[in-house]
Amino acid sequence: MVASLRLPSLTSLLFPATTRYPAALRRAVCLRNRPASGLAAAPSGTAAASTDSHRLRLDQAVTPRSQDFNAWYLDVIASAELADYGPVRGTMVIRPYGYAIWEAIQDYLNVKFKETGHSNMYFPQFIPYSFIEKEASHVEGFSPELALVTVGGGNELEEKLVVRPTSETIVNHMFTQWIHSYRDLPLMINQWANVTRWEMRTKPFIRTLEFLWQEGHTAHATPEEAEKEAKQMIEIYTRFAFEQTAIPVIAGRKSKLETFAGADTTYTIEAMMGDRKALQAGTSHNLGQNFSRAFGTQFQDENGERQHVWQTSWAVSTRFVGGIIMTHGDDTGLMLPPKIAPIQVVIVPIWKKDTEKTGVLSAASSVKEVLQAAGVRVKLDDTSERTAGWKFNFWEMKGVPIRIEIGPRDVSSNCVVVSRRDIPGKAGKVFGISMEPSTLVAYVKEMLEEIQSSLLEKAVSFRDSNIVDVNSYEELKAAISSGKWARGPWSASDSDEQRVKEETGATIRCFPFEQTQGIKTCLMTGNPAEEVAIFAKSY
Amino acid sequence: MVASLRLPSLTSLLFPATTRYPAALRRAVCLRNRPASGLAAAPSGTAAASTDSHRLRLDQAVTPRSQDFNAWYLDVIASAELADYGPVRGTMVIRPYGYAIWEAIQDYLNVKFKETGHSNMYFPQFIPYSFIEKEASHVEGFSPELALVTVGGGNELEEKLVVRPTSETIVNHMFTQWIHSYRDLPLMINQWANVTRWEMRTKPFIRTLEFLWQEGHTAHATPEEAEKEAKQMIEIYTRFAFEQTAIPVIAGRKSKLETFAGADTTYTIEAMMGDRKALQAGTSHNLGQNFSRAFGTQFQDENGERQHVWQTSWAVSTRFVGGIIMTHGDDTGLMLPPKIAPIQVVIVPIWKKDTEKTGVLSAASSVKEVLQAAGVRVKLDDTSERTAGWKFNFWEMKGVPIRIEIGPRDVSSNCVVVSRRDIPGKAGKVFGISMEPSTLVAYVKEMLEEIQSSLLEKAVSFRDSNIVDVNSYEELKAAISSGKWARGPWSASDSDEQRVKEETGATIRCFPFEQTQGIKTCLMTGNPAEEVAIFAKSY
Repeated sequence: MVASLRLPSLTSLLFPATTRYPAALRRAVCLRNRPASGLAAAPSGTAAASTDSHRLRLDQAVTPRSQDFNAWYLDVIASAELADYGPVRGTMVIRPYGYAIWEAIQDYLNVKFKETGHSNMYFPQFIPYSFIEKEASHVEGFSPELALVTVGGGNELEEKLVVRPTSETIVNHMFTQWIHSYRDLPLMINQWANVTRWEMRTKPFIRTLEFLWQEGHTAHATPEEAEKEAKQMIEIYTRFAFEQTAIPVIAGRKSKLETFAGADTTYTIEAMMGDRKALQAGTSHNLGQNFSRAFGTQFQDENGERQHVWQTSWAVSTRFVGGIIMTHGDDTGLMLPPKIAPIQVVIVPIWKKDTEKTGVLSAASSVKEVLQAAGVRVKLDDTSERTAGWKFNFWEMKGVPIRIEIGPRDVSSNCVVVSRRDIPGKAGKVFGISMEPSTLVAYVKEMLEEIQSSLLEKAVSFRDSNIVDVNSYEELKAAISSGKWARGPWSASDSDEQRVKEETGATIRCFPFEQTQGIKTCLMTGNPAEEVAIFAKSY
Repeated sequence: MVASLRLPSLTSLLFPATTRYPAALRRAVCLRNRPASGLAAAPSGTAAASTDSHRLRLDQAVTPRSQDFNAWYLDVIASAELADYGPVRGTMVIRPYGYAIWEAIQDYLNVKFKETGHSNMYFPQFIPYSFIEKEASHVEGFSPELALVTVGGGNELEEKLVVRPTSETIVNHMFTQWIHSYRDLPLMINQWANVTRWEMRTKPFIRTLEFLWQEGHTAHATPEEAEKEAKQMIEIYTRFAFEQTAIPVIAGRKSKLETFAGADTTYTIEAMMGDRKALQAGTSHNLGQNFSRAFGTQFQDENGERQHVWQTSWAVSTRFVGGIIMTHGDDTGLMLPPKIAPIQVVIVPIWKKDTEKTGVLSAASSVKEVLQAAGVRVKLDDTSERTAGWKFNFWEMKGVPIRIEIGPRDVSSNCVVVSRRDIPGKAGKVFGISMEPSTLVAYVKEMLEEIQSSLLEKAVSFRDSNIVDVNSYEELKAAISSGKWARGPWSASDSDEQRVKEETGATIRCFPFEQTQGIKTCLMTGNPAEEVAIFAKSY
């Protein structure tokens, strides 16, 4: 529990560390009093080596993941200072540590988008209500979730304005002005923006009233080009998920029922969270001519004929941060893949006597400089107000991949101790790594790579051991009720799909691109099936 | 005129190039049919060297600046494809070329903010209406400009929500939860976000219903620290303006009347536009304890006493893009300082015969690669659908600092022709620059530096020749009515200041940090004055 971090505070006297708070109170405490402020009441002035008592108390800062996944998730977000609730129901404040993860996501994707020929730009967030109504399935999908501006500058507006839930409509309105000839195509743009959807059940990062995302929008002369683009973008998202965030998503096509409101085809990447629920982590839509017909987005082709453009849109949002937390985190807290960790290495200097302090701090500083110069994102936690043990636990909870410890004996032997966040206890601890710059840098960089791979491997094996191949509805139901994903041949109707949802709570997450071989028989109808689908409960 | 760019189009037959369009029509044409689409109707297939007739026609694409500054400004924005009007009155779509300038601004400032200890984060844009009412002068300043969300998810909201016009209120609401002890201070954050102000008179980039900005917010334990921070940030903005955008802003303090709604002191950078109107290009506010008292943002100091924090906020917005256009642009169009130009060098290959094409294009490609590898932002315009003359004019209008021309003779002599955007005609053209990589790179980089300095020098001399030192109200009135800025000693009352505004249209832009020496007598009252103020008409 977060409040127990205040040592010795009034709260810890009132609620001994072993007391279980009522869940509601715990939530309120976690999200209102972040640890760093609560922690400020700790005894100051002395720094000591790690002690088991510190570790014990801090272990209880976060509800164990195995005990209550949702409580654990909220605790991690509060304790690791990733986000906080905003004053308006369902809104979220993204705090610096959480925002830095989003910045890492942006930095990577922004480069990929530009490499593949997209330009950033910005569309206004206020959309005339009439625009939303133009594309029939779009209005059906989005109208229940809209926030409407009805007053501006003190006056009731003649036409109410929609705060964008997504921008296909306004994008098409502008595309009609920019696209005239085939020479204007393809038109490929992206924007980083906030969007608003009036969700009833919200959860930080996963589903909030307002969230941040990028939305790409493209227009092409042929359906083949649009299809190629939609596939290219889901491929970029897939690589990003695997290589940067160590999340082994399954990429595939959505069923008709789960397709985006206004798309012909939606491609998706589906991630398995630690509780084995699926998270839709990114989507890429082939919009066909749905919006271009609704908005009259036309071009003159090489033969002088007027044609409607073929379009795509694709998005990844701050939800991805939630996916990272729920894929890699453990009972201790957050665990960040090195490639997107805001801090890759934390250095904790350890001293008992003041006579040791100078030598230890100066060694710690030079280690910091060496790593920083080598491009490693490193933090030196040299405050005297916390014990080394407290710091160990704090940075573990924040998910920093590597900790370097430097004590007086290390200084005299010119060595450091290196601990991996992903391997708890002594097994993840290596003593006697030379401080000699080239040795240390090479060691740290290799270990970062190793951690990155190891997180991915672990996630892959978790994912694969939790997907069951099923050949009948009974098997599907058994798999779902045991908390797993079910994969089986499917060629049944929309209403059969709806029935599965109602009876099991699971939906078709996708028809994966990677299909199993062999003759397939629909698990529901026994008819021939061309593809397997993946069913799972989802966020 | 933009429409005359379509050669030969129906429009150019109906309206010969010499015809003056009615202003209203011209605006409509410019902003609805961007040149790139209009231009698409040009004859295709052949590429030829520059001709005077092309140049002549294109010169008329943009209303001459000297003739109608406002029309010129809108023409440049349309022709250079910087922005377009959104469907909702007063909103703006920032197009890729305009957005790339904003990205250059972001890239520079983001690094500076982080270097000075600020972290990025994100606050929700919906603010409960009651928050805005908490700080008295804040509500007075902002309530006429608010956009209100009153319906969410199909239901009338119990409390209407303000779409943020600025975030001091919600920031303080959150700060109260994060700040407890002096150890939590200073708290220094920034966000890149959109904001909404229901402006009645709008102008692209300068004043729009929604715009993009960064807003920094800090909380400190002492008034001295807050003051130091507010000054530091205006200093960062000042350097940015001078060194990156070549805009010689005048930094200073706002008068009480012009101070931000909720601040104790507002520091500002004021830029002189090409029409000699002032543009407030960035502000930094010392908020004192105004918001912390209204929101109860307190901390426990080292003696255990509860105190209100001292705060600052500071912002730069997409308005800066408008400032760049209006500082450096000329009759030909945009002129971009190299440091923030999305494209620093455009390469235009020139050939007449097909036999020349391969050699010219291959030389142009290798020049491109050489410059790109050296970190220069370079574009090769190798389309066959436009003449070289058309390309010259197009990229001049887009304000690209350097053009490199490569024709068949250049290929055989292993040389290129280099033209400066800021020196028109032959005077800015240098022949026979060797293609040898190290020579060419050094030459181009030095020329980019030179152009950057030269734009700044030109702007400084324009600014200084348009500021008149005045010692009486008569002199002030004369200076203002001649279109200049007036600088004179001022210690008069708010109502005197109001009177100047009503009688001359000019306001106090700032009390500049750089003060003239000597004894000062208030130009209005004849009383002793401690400072000179600068008066000007402004955007």
